[in-house]
Amino acid sequence: MNASPANTGDASLVTIEPDAYRVAGVVCVTMNRPEAFNALSEALLDELQQTLTGIAKTDARVVVIAGAGRAFCAGHDLKEMRAAPSLAYYQQLFARCTKLMMTIQRMPQPVIARVHGIATAAGCQLVAMCDLAVAADTARFAVSGVNLGLFCATPSVPLSRNLSRKAALEMLLTGDFIDAAEARKQGLVNRLAPADALDDEVARLAASICAKPVEAVSAGKDLFYRQLEMGIEAAYQLAGQTMACNMMDESAFEGVQAFIDKRAPQWKR
Amino acid sequence: MNASPANTGDASLVTIEPDAYRVAGVVCVTMNRPEAFNALSEALLDELQQTLTGIAKTDARVVVIAGAGRAFCAGHDLKEMRAAPSLAYYQQLFARCTKLMMTIQRMPQPVIARVHGIATAAGCQLVAMCDLAVAADTARFAVSGVNLGLFCATPSVPLSRNLSRKAALEMLLTGDFIDAAEARKQGLVNRLAPADALDDEVARLAASICAKPVEAVSAGKDLFYRQLEMGIEAAYQLAGQTMACNMMDESAFEGVQAFIDKRAPQWKR
Amino acid sequence: MNASPANTGDASLVTIEPDAYRVAGVVCVTMNRPEAFNALSEALLDELQQTLTGIAKTDARVVVIAGAGRAFCAGHDLKEMRAAPSLAYYQQLFARCTKLMMTIQRMPQPVIARVHGIATAAGCQLVAMCDLAVAADTARFAVSGVNLGLFCATPSVPLSRNLSRKAALEMLLTGDFIDAAEARKQGLVNRLAPADALDDEVARLAASICAKPVEAVSAGKDLFYRQLEMGIEAAYQLAGQTMACNMMDESAFEGVQAFIDKRAPQWKR
Repeated sequence: MNASPANTGDASLVTIEPDAYRVAGVVCVTMNRPEAFNALSEALLDELQQTLTGIAKTDARVVVIAGAGRAFCAGHDLKEMRAAPSLAYYQQLFARCTKLMMTIQRMPQPVIARVHGIATAAGCQLVAMCDLAVAADTARFAVSGVNLGLFCATPSVPLSRNLSRKAALEMLLTGDFIDAAEARKQGLVNRLAPADALDDEVARLAASICAKPVEAVSAGKDLFYRQLEMGIEAAYQLAGQTMACNMMDESAFEGVQAFIDKRAPQWKR
Repeated sequence: MNASPANTGDASLVTIEPDAYRVAGVVCVTMNRPEAFNALSEALLDELQQTLTGIAKTDARVVVIAGAGRAFCAGHDLKEMRAAPSLAYYQQLFARCTKLMMTIQRMPQPVIARVHGIATAAGCQLVAMCDLAVAADTARFAVSGVNLGLFCATPSVPLSRNLSRKAALEMLLTGDFIDAAEARKQGLVNRLAPADALDDEVARLAASICAKPVEAVSAGKDLFYRQLEMGIEAAYQLAGQTMACNMMDESAFEGVQAFIDKRAPQWKR
Repeated sequence: MNASPANTGDASLVTIEPDAYRVAGVVCVTMNRPEAFNALSEALLDELQQTLTGIAKTDARVVVIAGAGRAFCAGHDLKEMRAAPSLAYYQQLFARCTKLMMTIQRMPQPVIARVHGIATAAGCQLVAMCDLAVAADTARFAVSGVNLGLFCATPSVPLSRNLSRKAALEMLLTGDFIDAAEARKQGLVNRLAPADALDDEVARLAASICAKPVEAVSAGKDLFYRQLEMGIEAAYQLAGQTMACNMMDESAFEGVQAFIDKRAPQWKR
């Protein structure tokens, strides 16, 4: 497996560990600016973009996004933002961040956010954009820009597509934190674990997905987001076509045959 | 009441009981392939289609969909699917299944899924497509196709319109079961009951709907799904028009008058 | 602050209290037909419309909508509706109600529903349309028109955008009440409080929003609803542009600088 396209050594802002979870196919991508709570500086955004674009082309099966140090991610790098006060600069900065977010949704591998400490502003957006999220039961989430006079507009896009409307708007207007249990109830994260068992839970979820044929997973992820943006009839049309094609895959034939034969499927890797 | 258009006798794959709940107007449609966990063979799909299309034209007021034997429904008939490995076959099979699902949404009567045992793959889709669902507290739900290499694409359409995004995608990517309590929390079912009180709960819900004038219920169901696919302004325009027309119905005049007079309404049946 | 554009004295159907919460910038608008459970007569609808349209143009920061007497709001005035049985009348009545509802969503100030007693039919719709809602833990909610033969079509528009689909449809088809705890779980209200602490909770929420710069709050609210109606890519484009413009506001510069300097921001009022 070639899952290290952008790994540029220990000094890198992003570390890539293809074996962090001892599950073949799972690549862990760690934001590595612990002293800045992994704030998304331009350099970190670029390196994440390169890393994910690279991994998208490999045979990696599942991507985990994690944060080094005490927090998952504290959002944009405010010093950097404040130092370049022009509309054009901010436009390209948010466009670049959006590109990264859409890359997560569009890459063929499911992406799991592994959340500990805090996930704030664009860090909370990152959690919302990942396909799945597992959090320490001590993690906390906020879209806190409004506290500084900057409404978390781009984070509101995935947040309002994960949480109910009023819950999302309350977070956006108050900047208040919600705890992990509330994030679970509201739909922002899938699973919780004690902090010291967080990686076990991430590994379990990732391993479950890796055990499935890659065709079903990647076509399924793609279909899932496409159909969500359609009316129900168009959604069904696309889904029916996707499923018919998927059924013609060798892996599906074998999987269905194995089920009929009451044996484990034999899939090529 | 004529609610038995497709009842073709005991050997039928679908049984129709107009009096199962002893509530006038409630028709119970039971999938009757218990030995196959009510897997949706082509024959069963066709008979369900005929049955529901027929009931749609009757003066039945509420439809309950149930499964005979130990399970609600285990999805498509995999043996049948495996035996005819062509893209064209699968395309028409999923199109036929979609047609059935859309019939449930479009028929004027509210349709309640009565779920016990398991509801998997297209069986889980059936629950998601029904207007309402009541489940035994021991019921379990999964979109398990991915375990065989076949992503539950068509089930993902209603599932992602019932559950939060991450919860739906987790089910689709892992194939894992969720229990009845979780299904209730996530929005996949409305009510739970102990298995031996399941029919009582279904009867209560159905009776409550049957007590309302048919015009309000059928126009309301139709409006509900139409407006969901619109922007909020168009939705309000259609809803306002629907409500104005509904208010002109004799039953609404009588209902509102009875409310003003503090008496029970006298509705024609 | 000029927040009393439509206050026409004690006999008014709507009272406006700019100091009800002792938080500068918070205006409390109270529906004042307690003897009719604040039923939305044409006169009350008009006065609410005038009041909110007026407040929208002031420098008020947060609006609270409350009901006088024992209930929040019991919906349309049924006697008035029954007395004018023509399609044209009902069309304009629901259009007028819709205009009010959309005014709430479009005005620059966040609007908080302060709910006690019951909120039924268009009263429940009002709660759903408000940006945020705080309810007494004894409050109850229903879209009960169907009990009279009148499906709550217009209320279904915001209800189905707040609650999960099956939960909304169950309320609409049965007319049953849900209690405050269920309303909180389902996403219809943000926060609950004991009835005698309801105003404290409303005040806390309102004060939190008033502490933020007005530019971030008003641009944020506007963006939130616009992007919800778009596909994710268009949503991100608009959100990025909104956030870039917001970042150019003096208040955001000061807020971000204060964060960097580890001091409290100094905002102009």
